[in-house]
Amino acid sequence: MTDAHTEPLAQRYTAVRQHSLALSSALTPEDQCVQSMPDASPTKWHLAHTTWFFETLVLQSHVPAYSVHDARYAPLFNSYYESLGPRHPRPQRGLLTRPSLAEVHAYRSAVDSAMLRLIEGPLMQAAGESKLHLLIELGLQHEQQHQELLLTDALHLMSLNPLRPAVMPGAEPSWLSLHALDGESERTPPGAWLDQAGGGIDIGHVGAHFAFDNETPRHRVWVEPHAIARELVTNADFQGFIDDGGYRCASLWLSEGWQAVQALGWAAPLHWLEDGLEFTLQGAQPRQPGQPVRHLSFFEAAAYAEWAGARLPTEFEWESAATGPTPPDHAFGQVWQWTRSSYDPYPRFRPLAGAVGEYNGKFMVGQMVLRGSSLATPPDHARATYRNFFPPATRWQFTGLRLAKDL
Amino acid sequence: MTDAHTEPLAQRYTAVRQHSLALSSALTPEDQCVQSMPDASPTKWHLAHTTWFFETLVLQSHVPAYSVHDARYAPLFNSYYESLGPRHPRPQRGLLTRPSLAEVHAYRSAVDSAMLRLIEGPLMQAAGESKLHLLIELGLQHEQQHQELLLTDALHLMSLNPLRPAVMPGAEPSWLSLHALDGESERTPPGAWLDQAGGGIDIGHVGAHFAFDNETPRHRVWVEPHAIARELVTNADFQGFIDDGGYRCASLWLSEGWQAVQALGWAAPLHWLEDGLEFTLQGAQPRQPGQPVRHLSFFEAAAYAEWAGARLPTEFEWESAATGPTPPDHAFGQVWQWTRSSYDPYPRFRPLAGAVGEYNGKFMVGQMVLRGSSLATPPDHARATYRNFFPPATRWQFTGLRLAKDL
Amino acid sequence: MTDAHTEPLAQRYTAVRQHSLALSSALTPEDQCVQSMPDASPTKWHLAHTTWFFETLVLQSHVPAYSVHDARYAPLFNSYYESLGPRHPRPQRGLLTRPSLAEVHAYRSAVDSAMLRLIEGPLMQAAGESKLHLLIELGLQHEQQHQELLLTDALHLMSLNPLRPAVMPGAEPSWLSLHALDGESERTPPGAWLDQAGGGIDIGHVGAHFAFDNETPRHRVWVEPHAIARELVTNADFQGFIDDGGYRCASLWLSEGWQAVQALGWAAPLHWLEDGLEFTLQGAQPRQPGQPVRHLSFFEAAAYAEWAGARLPTEFEWESAATGPTPPDHAFGQVWQWTRSSYDPYPRFRPLAGAVGEYNGKFMVGQMVLRGSSLATPPDHARATYRNFFPPATRWQFTGLRLAKDL
Amino acid sequence: MTDAHTEPLAQRYTAVRQHSLALSSALTPEDQCVQSMPDASPTKWHLAHTTWFFETLVLQSHVPAYSVHDARYAPLFNSYYESLGPRHPRPQRGLLTRPSLAEVHAYRSAVDSAMLRLIEGPLMQAAGESKLHLLIELGLQHEQQHQELLLTDALHLMSLNPLRPAVMPGAEPSWLSLHALDGESERTPPGAWLDQAGGGIDIGHVGAHFAFDNETPRHRVWVEPHAIARELVTNADFQGFIDDGGYRCASLWLSEGWQAVQALGWAAPLHWLEDGLEFTLQGAQPRQPGQPVRHLSFFEAAAYAEWAGARLPTEFEWESAATGPTPPDHAFGQVWQWTRSSYDPYPRFRPLAGAVGEYNGKFMVGQMVLRGSSLATPPDHARATYRNFFPPATRWQFTGLRLAKDL
Repeated sequence: MTDAHTEPLAQRYTAVRQHSLALSSALTPEDQCVQSMPDASPTKWHLAHTTWFFETLVLQSHVPAYSVHDARYAPLFNSYYESLGPRHPRPQRGLLTRPSLAEVHAYRSAVDSAMLRLIEGPLMQAAGESKLHLLIELGLQHEQQHQELLLTDALHLMSLNPLRPAVMPGAEPSWLSLHALDGESERTPPGAWLDQAGGGIDIGHVGAHFAFDNETPRHRVWVEPHAIARELVTNADFQGFIDDGGYRCASLWLSEGWQAVQALGWAAPLHWLEDGLEFTLQGAQPRQPGQPVRHLSFFEAAAYAEWAGARLPTEFEWESAATGPTPPDHAFGQVWQWTRSSYDPYPRFRPLAGAVGEYNGKFMVGQMVLRGSSLATPPDHARATYRNFFPPATRWQFTGLRLAKDL
Repeated sequence: MTDAHTEPLAQRYTAVRQHSLALSSALTPEDQCVQSMPDASPTKWHLAHTTWFFETLVLQSHVPAYSVHDARYAPLFNSYYESLGPRHPRPQRGLLTRPSLAEVHAYRSAVDSAMLRLIEGPLMQAAGESKLHLLIELGLQHEQQHQELLLTDALHLMSLNPLRPAVMPGAEPSWLSLHALDGESERTPPGAWLDQAGGGIDIGHVGAHFAFDNETPRHRVWVEPHAIARELVTNADFQGFIDDGGYRCASLWLSEGWQAVQALGWAAPLHWLEDGLEFTLQGAQPRQPGQPVRHLSFFEAAAYAEWAGARLPTEFEWESAATGPTPPDHAFGQVWQWTRSSYDPYPRFRPLAGAVGEYNGKFMVGQMVLRGSSLATPPDHARATYRNFFPPATRWQFTGLRLAKDL
Repeated sequence: MTDAHTEPLAQRYTAVRQHSLALSSALTPEDQCVQSMPDASPTKWHLAHTTWFFETLVLQSHVPAYSVHDARYAPLFNSYYESLGPRHPRPQRGLLTRPSLAEVHAYRSAVDSAMLRLIEGPLMQAAGESKLHLLIELGLQHEQQHQELLLTDALHLMSLNPLRPAVMPGAEPSWLSLHALDGESERTPPGAWLDQAGGGIDIGHVGAHFAFDNETPRHRVWVEPHAIARELVTNADFQGFIDDGGYRCASLWLSEGWQAVQALGWAAPLHWLEDGLEFTLQGAQPRQPGQPVRHLSFFEAAAYAEWAGARLPTEFEWESAATGPTPPDHAFGQVWQWTRSSYDPYPRFRPLAGAVGEYNGKFMVGQMVLRGSSLATPPDHARATYRNFFPPATRWQFTGLRLAKDL
Repeated sequence: MTDAHTEPLAQRYTAVRQHSLALSSALTPEDQCVQSMPDASPTKWHLAHTTWFFETLVLQSHVPAYSVHDARYAPLFNSYYESLGPRHPRPQRGLLTRPSLAEVHAYRSAVDSAMLRLIEGPLMQAAGESKLHLLIELGLQHEQQHQELLLTDALHLMSLNPLRPAVMPGAEPSWLSLHALDGESERTPPGAWLDQAGGGIDIGHVGAHFAFDNETPRHRVWVEPHAIARELVTNADFQGFIDDGGYRCASLWLSEGWQAVQALGWAAPLHWLEDGLEFTLQGAQPRQPGQPVRHLSFFEAAAYAEWAGARLPTEFEWESAATGPTPPDHAFGQVWQWTRSSYDPYPRFRPLAGAVGEYNGKFMVGQMVLRGSSLATPPDHARATYRNFFPPATRWQFTGLRLAKDL
């Protein structure tokens, strides 16, 4: 595992970049090319896009002599940066059978060489290390986000194949397995609550370590007395909701959620299969009752909470508990936890200047905040102030929930 | 004008109910039957649905001997109450050429008679006046909401007719005209800001007077120092945005807003016509530069604010200013003002018990809060804690904006 | 009943025009305004469009002093004539609450006055009676087509109203009732076939009487020996198909028809209701087993024929039988009969010159031919060479079938 | 080139099967996996589906001891045979990254081995050679159809890639190049017509050689005197239509075609690129004025004919000319030629018995007939009675036109 704060940058750069390739090592060129839905991207595209990010925002902007690897790539691998020129339509990313996977690997190698020359060369100092270091760290954090998306997107693709191939057959990479729960054994008694006194609390990132702009500035929020569940909701818990008719009871649901249930025929979390199986990165596997339930939409999480006589925590309650003296169990490394907070800007929030300002701010509408991190999040990418966000109907991410209640 | 707090209930009931008919008096039976889009409802449906509300939630629940006017109406005029049985599909409300307008008027008369008998009779006392009074007041406030929708929906329908008929030809009803601005004359100097110190403030409704459940409970919010514009943004202001290429500059827009601009071809507010005209309740009329701009989506409001080097206020900032010692001008009676707040529940919010609990809470996702009131809002329906809400792409309401900025 | 061949033109003009009003006399202004689906048009639109046809193609083209009734109407009531200027979008015909029904009636009166002045005046002779007479007759035949559409469109609208109002409550107009079958009593023994020798036959219209351009020119077609059913397929017959699982057996269906069955959930003809009822012009009525089945798509007709071990006749076989010495029973006045003929042009077909050339030719692709006429066809509008046509999934017309088989 | 009539079956089987692999030899595994639109299929799917056809309809039905290669493949590679079990949804064929291309190649090899054992073994005689031979020949003709689709589908995919990769870079396979026209040099004078006397002619296949069921039975058709163009319409000819505003002139178009022009923005044939280039199997190449225009829809072909003062031939006129003493030039091997004939069944047509009966008959609605063959059709697959068919808006096939006119 890399460490963003202490490790030499060259070493960290190499480790992060290498990890993307490790994650996709069991996937064929075909697996890495296909796009399963407009919201998902092919593995190959993730590998190329993260490389384009370094090439465009670091090398082209800061290395005068840098010669673009292939000028035709920019519109193909620009995701959503309006200020960086035209883009290939997102729903057509899966049509890009060329450049081939081998060519994309070559693209990565070429950019990595140039990046390492930059990192270890004199330009780094001349440019003012801290600013350029921050930009490179942004690129690494960006790649780590795409590492998670790479896995969830590949999982979604494989789930639509009747042959049910595994994204990661056999043993998991160590940082994944480290975070697997061992069934019921290590769980606290269900129903345990952690009381929170409330009052004025400080929320958001401050300090020298990296954070995205959307985690700032640190500011005061007033929170009422409440309790937050010590544990995540499990598969067994959620089975109780299903068995009690939760998917058929309109009064538990937000109006838009109920429409989704009816229109899309939801009757269980995504990736739940017949006969007690679920579809995982290791293919179809027996569902473990004590494992945190995952692949839930916000709507399902909120309906479950209503059914349980509780509610979802706000993102402020979550952050306050996670940074308090008695943090809840499994805040990180299992599932992203839906909160009852819309993804609005913090007071005095301003996006970063330049193209990187398109990173977060322009998505601040119509999405819900998730906190924590999942089994697919690189551990050194997680932090208590991190604000993940997705539209409320999203199900293909590793998303679950933790309950809260008023006191 | 009626007054919800001091007027005898029978008098107020009659006044509110009569007002709905007055608003639709210039519309033909055909005008009142047709539905212009799934989000809008026909006038006749508004007239019948508000009646169904009283019949179902008051008369049927509280008057033992009450005999339903026509048992076939319930599924036709139930809007979205899952707990009150099946409903005619919303996009097909305009297919209901029967019952006729005359039959709907008769339905209103029959329910009004029964309601007045109830209000003035012994049951009212027996049931505990305050609770039943509150329920009837909810019905009246509900009807007042539909009075505004009746106008905006009719305006939308007429706007799609090449003949451009007026919803309200000739003189406006007094409560509408009372609130028309008289061009530039009464406006404060543009650009005036009202500074706000910030800190812990109390937000939300408390007290005996009526409020919707979503305005409660009153609770503390921490607000940073900021300023709020004394005036609303005007047509002339917004013309400046257009002339400066605001609709063609991606960097001003939220991502989803920019997609809407491109997909829907937005280039001006809704109801702006050629040759300096706009489509109003009185038909096509010259656009007044000094009038508040209206028929903007949240996306357009936010893009304008970005262009102006400012931002939208949060709903808490808005409420704090409106209830402070120096409230902004024209907070009420002109246009609903988009805020930078998603429509999330207040801390400890609980919906009302029973079917009326479906009134607000189940819509608390994917919508933005608007504050103030518009020229089409009955004046006694406006209050500083009122939380109106619509999806961010909504344009057919009387929606505008007021700027804010950090201090 | 009028007679296109012997009646004085003024008398015939008045009778046809009056009949449109008679058909809509039980409909309210609201009924006449609403559009139930993009393929259907409001009654009021039919009344105005047929008037626009006379005004534009006869009066404006042939009466020098004619002053247009209302210049704003042309784009509203032009149906599909590209050469006659822009048009209001078809799916938005139902939004035209103005002009009102009374205004459309006034439009009809004004045009009728001008038409009768023309018909009885000197211009008629000067212009060459036969050509202008033909054009006026085209306008009358056009109006008769819309009389049938007026009924099927109104029936479709009413069918979507849970109150199930009748288009024509009470007694039917005489020309409708004349053609009602009296249950089983008058039917020939089921299964009777009329043998046809085949060979070279002449198909299509020739002579002085009116016919649409698509029925010409008369030409030779080679037909194989075959038999055509003496009777139409009845409700009882079709119930047999349903009871035998016809809607669940893929092998009976054309591929596109099977897709429609699955996507649209077809399980019975359109307008079949619960409890042995069907929805008719007189509202919900008991389904008569011996009546011809109606409201079938071509796909259902073809699947039924396959199930019955037979096939649909070609349009040439149908015309040959209908004009032969022993014509099949109920060729006219009950249901349009789907044929196994695509709507292709006859050899040497040329559309009429000018705007009226858009009447038929430009629709000659993607449609199937129907022959005969229905209970809603004005009797003097039916003829053996008539080629009606609709896309194969059409169900809201009075469409049924008659079997054929090879010999 | 193989010859279906004289070559030993084993030799022909091997040649046809090998040809599919040769066509895809320049495509990467990624190219062969992706699906560019619902109407197209991936190369890998074509390779597997044609193999499934032999395995299911020949080996499983006729070789008692045959053991299925992989039981999981049947639903993946069944195209549209309702009688042969469930099928993977057509629009999701491109999601099948597994089985891999190598596994599909292995599937082909295994089935080929079994097929060759069958062809050369005793079962062939026992089963009655002619019937089984016919079934195998059907499988080979089926594979040849997919060879053409494989190329047009791959061409479509590559055309959507901004890098413009070639399906067949460098030299073409001999049977493709044999049929390329050598610019203007070998063309007859433009405008030459071949007069046809008309009368009763016999149409359709008869005899021992293979033909699809839709080409039968041979029957008499009456044809009027007419002329058919000696040559195909060329790129230069079609450029004249464009230059004269053909795509902007509604009166030239069928109604549905005009809607397509407006909705889809058609302004030139598919695969025409900027700067006089077109996208071909060899990538972007200069457009040759004298080459037959291709990648036209029926709508464009019909509009061109209207503009040229001519019409499209019927399929009967085309077949009559092609089998007459002076056949038109380039009837085969360049482009499929749209006819003015809907794809209706021939008199007395009956589909083959069993699953192969789903091959043609169930598609006989909503499609237009094309005659001849294209540069992508295996030469021994073309014949004068062949009835190709596609919906009228189809443009991704090698489709062009030849004019006809009445005499």
